[in-house]
Amino acid sequence: MVQATLSPDLIARFAAIVGPAHALVDDGDIAPYLIESRGLYHGVSPLVLRPGTVQEVADILALATETRTAIVPQGGNTGHVGGSVPREGAADVVLSLSRLNRIRDVDPVGDVIVADGGCVLADIQAQAEAVGRLFPLSLGSEGSCQIGGNLSTNAGGTAVLAYGGMRQLCLGLEVVLPTGEIWNGLRRLKKDNTGYDLRDLFIGAEGTLGVITGAVLKLFPRPLGHEVAFAGLKSVKDALALFERASSRCGTALTGFELMPRLGVDFTTRHIPGVRDPLATAHDWYVLIDISTSDAAETATRMMEALLSEGLEAGLVEDAVVAASEEQRKALWHMRESMSPAQKPEGGSIKHDVSVPVSAIPDFMAEADAAVMAAIPGARICSFGHMGDGNIHYNISQPVGADKQAFLDRWREINHLVHGIVLKYHGSISAEHGIGQLKRDELAAVREPIEMDLMRRVKRAFDPAGIMNPGKVLKA
Amino acid sequence: MVQATLSPDLIARFAAIVGPAHALVDDGDIAPYLIESRGLYHGVSPLVLRPGTVQEVADILALATETRTAIVPQGGNTGHVGGSVPREGAADVVLSLSRLNRIRDVDPVGDVIVADGGCVLADIQAQAEAVGRLFPLSLGSEGSCQIGGNLSTNAGGTAVLAYGGMRQLCLGLEVVLPTGEIWNGLRRLKKDNTGYDLRDLFIGAEGTLGVITGAVLKLFPRPLGHEVAFAGLKSVKDALALFERASSRCGTALTGFELMPRLGVDFTTRHIPGVRDPLATAHDWYVLIDISTSDAAETATRMMEALLSEGLEAGLVEDAVVAASEEQRKALWHMRESMSPAQKPEGGSIKHDVSVPVSAIPDFMAEADAAVMAAIPGARICSFGHMGDGNIHYNISQPVGADKQAFLDRWREINHLVHGIVLKYHGSISAEHGIGQLKRDELAAVREPIEMDLMRRVKRAFDPAGIMNPGKVLKA
Repeated sequence: MVQATLSPDLIARFAAIVGPAHALVDDGDIAPYLIESRGLYHGVSPLVLRPGTVQEVADILALATETRTAIVPQGGNTGHVGGSVPREGAADVVLSLSRLNRIRDVDPVGDVIVADGGCVLADIQAQAEAVGRLFPLSLGSEGSCQIGGNLSTNAGGTAVLAYGGMRQLCLGLEVVLPTGEIWNGLRRLKKDNTGYDLRDLFIGAEGTLGVITGAVLKLFPRPLGHEVAFAGLKSVKDALALFERASSRCGTALTGFELMPRLGVDFTTRHIPGVRDPLATAHDWYVLIDISTSDAAETATRMMEALLSEGLEAGLVEDAVVAASEEQRKALWHMRESMSPAQKPEGGSIKHDVSVPVSAIPDFMAEADAAVMAAIPGARICSFGHMGDGNIHYNISQPVGADKQAFLDRWREINHLVHGIVLKYHGSISAEHGIGQLKRDELAAVREPIEMDLMRRVKRAFDPAGIMNPGKVLKA
Repeated sequence: MVQATLSPDLIARFAAIVGPAHALVDDGDIAPYLIESRGLYHGVSPLVLRPGTVQEVADILALATETRTAIVPQGGNTGHVGGSVPREGAADVVLSLSRLNRIRDVDPVGDVIVADGGCVLADIQAQAEAVGRLFPLSLGSEGSCQIGGNLSTNAGGTAVLAYGGMRQLCLGLEVVLPTGEIWNGLRRLKKDNTGYDLRDLFIGAEGTLGVITGAVLKLFPRPLGHEVAFAGLKSVKDALALFERASSRCGTALTGFELMPRLGVDFTTRHIPGVRDPLATAHDWYVLIDISTSDAAETATRMMEALLSEGLEAGLVEDAVVAASEEQRKALWHMRESMSPAQKPEGGSIKHDVSVPVSAIPDFMAEADAAVMAAIPGARICSFGHMGDGNIHYNISQPVGADKQAFLDRWREINHLVHGIVLKYHGSISAEHGIGQLKRDELAAVREPIEMDLMRRVKRAFDPAGIMNPGKVLKA
C-alpha cells in the first residue's frame, strides 16, 4: 500500500528534484490540478511537481517507488473519467507534464514528428501543417490537451474513421517506468516485429504503468480535396444506411460521419454564438459528412455530389447542404463540436461514451431511449457522435424545470441502465474516454474475471510498488 | 524448468484429451511438424496433438502447466525463424491448430469475419470475397498459412501500405492461456478504451503467451478501380523519389509499392515457369505499383497515368507498362511473389527481413551492399520488398560456383554485419518475420536491458510455468 500522508521531509526531497519554483505546495497553486472540467471529481494533493526534463521525471518516480508515494501523471487535465486528478482521501502527488513541451523533430520526408509528452495537441497539428503535412488527431479540447494524455487514453476524436485513433497514429514511445528507469522506444519504423508490443500496452493504460514522456507520431499528406456536407434525415436507421453507402463509395476518403439529433441542433443554435441551422426546415436527425481526397480536389467534390444525390434518390436524405468555403466547412464542424458545451446551459447532463457494432446503432439507441424515458419521464436525450466508429456520446439533459442535483444524483443508476443495453449489443462502456475512477468498478463487474486478472498481472509486473496512478482503471 | 522427456503415462494423458486418432506418436507422422520450409531448424518431438475444439486446447494447456510440459503451437508452419517448430534436444509437444478451421461468422454489414485460429488465410480471403468484401492480408504462403499464426507473428505482406498489418486488421481475439483458462476477447468494436490492450500483447507474441484460437477480423469494401504497373528505374534513390510522389498523390489508394533488382527479375524469368520480363530493355531496378480505388475504376486509372507520366517527365522512370487485364495484373504480382522462390535454384541464400525508416532505404542499401561485397566477393545481392513500409528482404545468393554449405555457414556472420548497418539507421532486425529462435539471442544483444526485462516480466506474468513455446523470442 502506498503512503496516506506525506512528511515535510519527503515533500522536500521531491521538491529538490525539480527545484522550488516547480514544486507547488500552496493550496491556491494546487487547486487547478485537483478538478476536472465536468466537476465530477474533487481530489486532494499535498504537492504538484512540474519537472523540466525526462531525467527529473525518472528521479521523481524512482523516489516514489522507494518511498511508496502515489503519483498521478497529468497532461492538459481535459479527461472526463477522473483519471488525471488525484484521489479524495489520499496524498497523491501530481506530476504535471506541462513543462515537457518541446517538439524534438519534424521530419516531413520520413513523415514523423517527435514530441515531448507535454506538447499541446494543437501545437503538434500546427507544426505538421507548417511542413505541409497533417497530424489527424482532432478533438474538442485540442487547444489544451497534451499528447502524452492523448496517448495514455488512446484518444479518438473526429478523424478515427479514416486515420484511426491514437494507437494507430503512434510509431514509438519514450516511457519512464515506475522504478525510474527510462524505456527509449522512440522508433520511427512502419514495420517492426521484434518481441512483445510494449508500446500498445502503455497507450491507453491511463498512466497506471508509467509516464509517457515522448512519442514518435505519424504524419500524413494534407488532402487536396475537402468537402463537408450537412444532411437532414428522418431516422437513425436512414443515417446508418447512408453511412454504409458512404463507406463503400468513399473508402478511407470518408474522413467523418457524425450523427446529431434535432435537440442538439436546437441547443447549439440557442446557446452557441454564431451557430445557425444551415437547413431551411427542421429534421429529426442530421449527419455531418466529411470527405477528403489526396489526389485532386475534384475527386472529393464528385464523391460528395454522388453520395448526396444517391441518398436523396433513395429517400434516405431529406435535405442537404454542401459547404461552399473553408469558412462554411468550419462552421459546420463548429456546430458538431458544440454539441457537448451547448448542453451545459440546459441544466444537468448525464453522459455516456459508449460503442456498439456500427450496424447495431439504431436498435441500441431505440432501446436505450425507451428505457431512459421510462426511468426519467421528460428527460431530453441528446445522443450524438462518431457514427462511423459505432461510438455514441449518449448524453441526457435533465427534464425542463427539474432539480439539477436530484437529476445528477441518478448518474450511476442511469449509467447502469444504459450500459446494460450496451452490453446486450456486445458494446463497450467506454469507447474513447477510458476508465479512470468513473468506470473502474463497473469495468470489474462487466468483464470476465480472467481478463481483470490478466490486467492486474500486468500492473504488478510493471509497477510492483503500486505507485502509478493508483485507483485508476484497477482498484489500488 | 520444463520437462526434458515425456513419460508414456503423460503422453497417454495428453492423447486422451484429443483421442488417439489425433495424437501422433509415430516418427513418420510427426516428421512434417518438425521442420520449416527453409530447412534451418530440425526439432524433435515425442507427440503432436491435433485438438478439435477450443476446450481441448484448454485441457491440453492446463495439463501442460500442471506437468510443466513445453507446448509449441503450430499453424501452417510457414514461418522462417524457427518459431513454430519444436526445439532440438528437448521434448516439446506440438499443438497443431489445423483442425480448428471453422469460419464462425461472416457479417458483411458489420464488416467482420470471425474465424477459428486454424483457418487457412486463403479460405478467409475467399469467404470475404463471397460476400463482396476484401480481407486484405496477402502473403506468398496464403494457401497454407493459418490466421492464428498470422496473428501470432503480426504478419505483414504486400497490402500493409494501405491496410496495415495483422495488428490493424484484427478487432478481437479468443486466447487460451497457458493455465488453460479461456479469454473471450472476441469483440467487434472499432473503439473500445476499457483497460490494457491485451489483444495487441498476444498479437506478435509468437505463441509464447497463449494460443490464439479465434479472431474477429476486419473486412473492407472491394475496390472498384485497380491498376498495376511495372516500372524500370536506374536507382533505389529514384524509386524512393517516385514512392514519395505516389504516396502524396494517392494516399491510401496506393496499395502496393514493391522494389525489385535486375538480378531478381533475371532469376524469376530464368527459373519460374511463365514469368517474362514485361519491359523491352533491362533496367537496374524495378518497382511494382498497385493502386486501388473505392469510388470508381477511372480514379485508379487516372492516378496511375498521372503518376507514371510525372515520373517519366521527372526522369525517375525509364520505362513502364500498365497491366491491361486482370490476368496481366496477376502476372506482374506473380513475378514479385516469385522473387524468393526464384533464388533457390541459384544455390544458397542468406536472408534478412529488415526495416529502416523509408527515407533511409537508399543509404542503408548502398552501405550494406558495400559491406557484403567486401565480405563475400562475388556475392549476388537480391534485395527486394515492401519499399513503402521501409521493409527490405535483403537476401544474398551465393557467388556462382561457390560451395553452398560453406556459404550458408556464414549466415550468422553476415546477419551480424547487415544488422549492424540496420541498427545504424535505427532500423529493425525483424520487420515482419518475427524473432523465433533465429534472432532470439541477437534481439537480447541489441535491445536495452530494460526492454528485455519488461518482456520477461510479461512472460512470467502470463506463463508462470514457462510452458508456452519456450526458447522462442526469449530465452527459456
